[in-house]
Amino acid sequence: MVDGLQLPRTSDGTPIVISVDAMGGDLGPAAVVAGLALSAAALPDVRFVLHGDEAQLKPLMARHPELAAHVALRHAARVVSMEDKPSQIMRHGQGTSMWGAIDSLRDGEAGAAVSCGNTGALMAVSMLRLRKLPGVNRPAIACLWPSRSPSGFNVMLDVGADVKADPKDLLQYAVMGASYARNGMATKRPRVGLLNVGTEEHKGRAELKEASDLLAAQAAAGDYDYLGFVEGSDIPSDRVDVIVTDGFTGNVALKTGEGTAKLISGIMREELGRGLLSRIGALFSMRSLNRLKLRMDPRRVNGGVFLGLNGVVVKSHGSADATGISAAISLAAQLATARFHERLAARVASAGSTTQNDTAIISGDQTGAQTGQGSDPTQ
Amino acid sequence: MVDGLQLPRTSDGTPIVISVDAMGGDLGPAAVVAGLALSAAALPDVRFVLHGDEAQLKPLMARHPELAAHVALRHAARVVSMEDKPSQIMRHGQGTSMWGAIDSLRDGEAGAAVSCGNTGALMAVSMLRLRKLPGVNRPAIACLWPSRSPSGFNVMLDVGADVKADPKDLLQYAVMGASYARNGMATKRPRVGLLNVGTEEHKGRAELKEASDLLAAQAAAGDYDYLGFVEGSDIPSDRVDVIVTDGFTGNVALKTGEGTAKLISGIMREELGRGLLSRIGALFSMRSLNRLKLRMDPRRVNGGVFLGLNGVVVKSHGSADATGISAAISLAAQLATARFHERLAARVASAGSTTQNDTAIISGDQTGAQTGQGSDPTQ
Repeated sequence: MVDGLQLPRTSDGTPIVISVDAMGGDLGPAAVVAGLALSAAALPDVRFVLHGDEAQLKPLMARHPELAAHVALRHAARVVSMEDKPSQIMRHGQGTSMWGAIDSLRDGEAGAAVSCGNTGALMAVSMLRLRKLPGVNRPAIACLWPSRSPSGFNVMLDVGADVKADPKDLLQYAVMGASYARNGMATKRPRVGLLNVGTEEHKGRAELKEASDLLAAQAAAGDYDYLGFVEGSDIPSDRVDVIVTDGFTGNVALKTGEGTAKLISGIMREELGRGLLSRIGALFSMRSLNRLKLRMDPRRVNGGVFLGLNGVVVKSHGSADATGISAAISLAAQLATARFHERLAARVASAGSTTQNDTAIISGDQTGAQTGQGSDPTQ
Repeated sequence: MVDGLQLPRTSDGTPIVISVDAMGGDLGPAAVVAGLALSAAALPDVRFVLHGDEAQLKPLMARHPELAAHVALRHAARVVSMEDKPSQIMRHGQGTSMWGAIDSLRDGEAGAAVSCGNTGALMAVSMLRLRKLPGVNRPAIACLWPSRSPSGFNVMLDVGADVKADPKDLLQYAVMGASYARNGMATKRPRVGLLNVGTEEHKGRAELKEASDLLAAQAAAGDYDYLGFVEGSDIPSDRVDVIVTDGFTGNVALKTGEGTAKLISGIMREELGRGLLSRIGALFSMRSLNRLKLRMDPRRVNGGVFLGLNGVVVKSHGSADATGISAAISLAAQLATARFHERLAARVASAGSTTQNDTAIISGDQTGAQTGQGSDPTQ
């Protein structure tokens, strides 16, 4: 659960239901059930549909008897492994727990889905079963990045749904990322920046200049402030709330940030463990160091959100433990409660119809565009 | 100066001469002269040619009278500013201190050049005055990255010379980066990885698969071990010594790493300053925290090296202070002493001739290829 977000509550009495894929994570279904127990305790009004192998899940559920009233078990005999290729799962994935978790969303049984399985396969199954949101060409994965911004986090997308993005895709990422920042981070008017190798206008690839012009032109329709180009050093800063980039660059940046944080914490551990004085000092500083650890803990921000599909899918890190999985589940519940999906769809449709009317720059399925109202300031 | 490197010494009696651009850094010529004084004290056999405005430099030099025997002043009335466009400097840059510093190298007066000025302009002037090394299509900028590798640093290139790189360019980066790791870091047989969004063969852009095949085929000629794809999280790891990528991705990764390190150190400072116990603890841990700071200090690894030109140019960070500038000057002296430029040229020619004979994959000027011996294991 991201700090500062309201705990999800049913608004009109309709229960919030989250569909959870119990299988496919590095730590197995035990970690998922333990994470589910944490979320269920924190979110007593939310209900869950848990997909996976009953023979494994029943004994795990029995350890948490309080879950029985909150969780419906849905048997799935097969599991998507980390080695499975997305194309194979698209053809032969029916009957897996991942497929089942997405179908709960497709069938309207759940308001959001969570999985810590194979990212490529999850995106493939989500695309196949949920289909793309009308007006969206390439869906994206958005991550939260610890930052100096008031909310404590910045949004970056795409971090790996697709290795390519043309200027129109980058515009859609800006619109979707801004909507996510409003609904997931309560950032009223997100500041959007386009990732480049310098902030000057002439820097970078030609297509980024074109994208920058589009993002600037659509800032009003997308209800964001456009900052122009930002650099890698700005990603964790308080200059920006939403960083837009293609999935190749975003994925490299995300993993580089993770690797750098891991290097520093490893060296810090080594140095603080060296010598008696340092170890005494570390004892005195324990609370500070724990607060530092907490502020930088990647488990707190666990959950890449798939944007641009007909439904909200949260991808938990494959190696997530109970704390991390609970964070992903709580994020899904938060987004379901905020009716994020409908808001996002309306925003994309509204931005699509504006751009279509103005400059006809959005390609693809525009059937949803007519229905866009675009008047809800929290979209 | 990077730890573990030998201090430069004249080998056959020929003095090592380094050409230094005194102007154009954020802190002005005072920082450059102060850095020069540090390097001159550490490297008594090295001589320097200092380019810049005499009226400003003479009083600064007077503060370090010991420099008189080591430094020749070369007046340049004009300065390249951070705002100047590379294209303008290429046409009208003659008479600037940057141009003069590069011409010292071109004319054989110096063995390496250092500048902390405008990167784009420095690359443009270097390309124009030094010309590309025969066989090289795109020059690259290589940086050193604090890492878990035995040398304490990994090499990454390109970090911003060019936003594009095709598979043949990436192969040349691998050959040049491996040569730099051998000569700059004393890594006997560098492990080379190609940056991608996953380590599996099918991941990433199609051109990266092609580049990966080239890098694998040329590992023997380039005298490196090819690891295949690596991810952002591997950049600071001990899995790899040389990370190959295009200048767009490399620049974003470099700045993301810097931004992440800055965020963590800022939060650490805040947390350790909060509360009496923490402040007492920080006192006890002072030596450890200072060692941590030293190990992560970006000034220790200050100096992006331009590879693929007829001469060694070291780009110091624009905001470098005396310590940072001294590190860049000492790196230049180390590379000049190691005759890095000749070794690199021979290696590129040798790899070029191999690939040309085998598969004719290297395009561009091949006039240097015939002279390549490729038998020197330290190239």
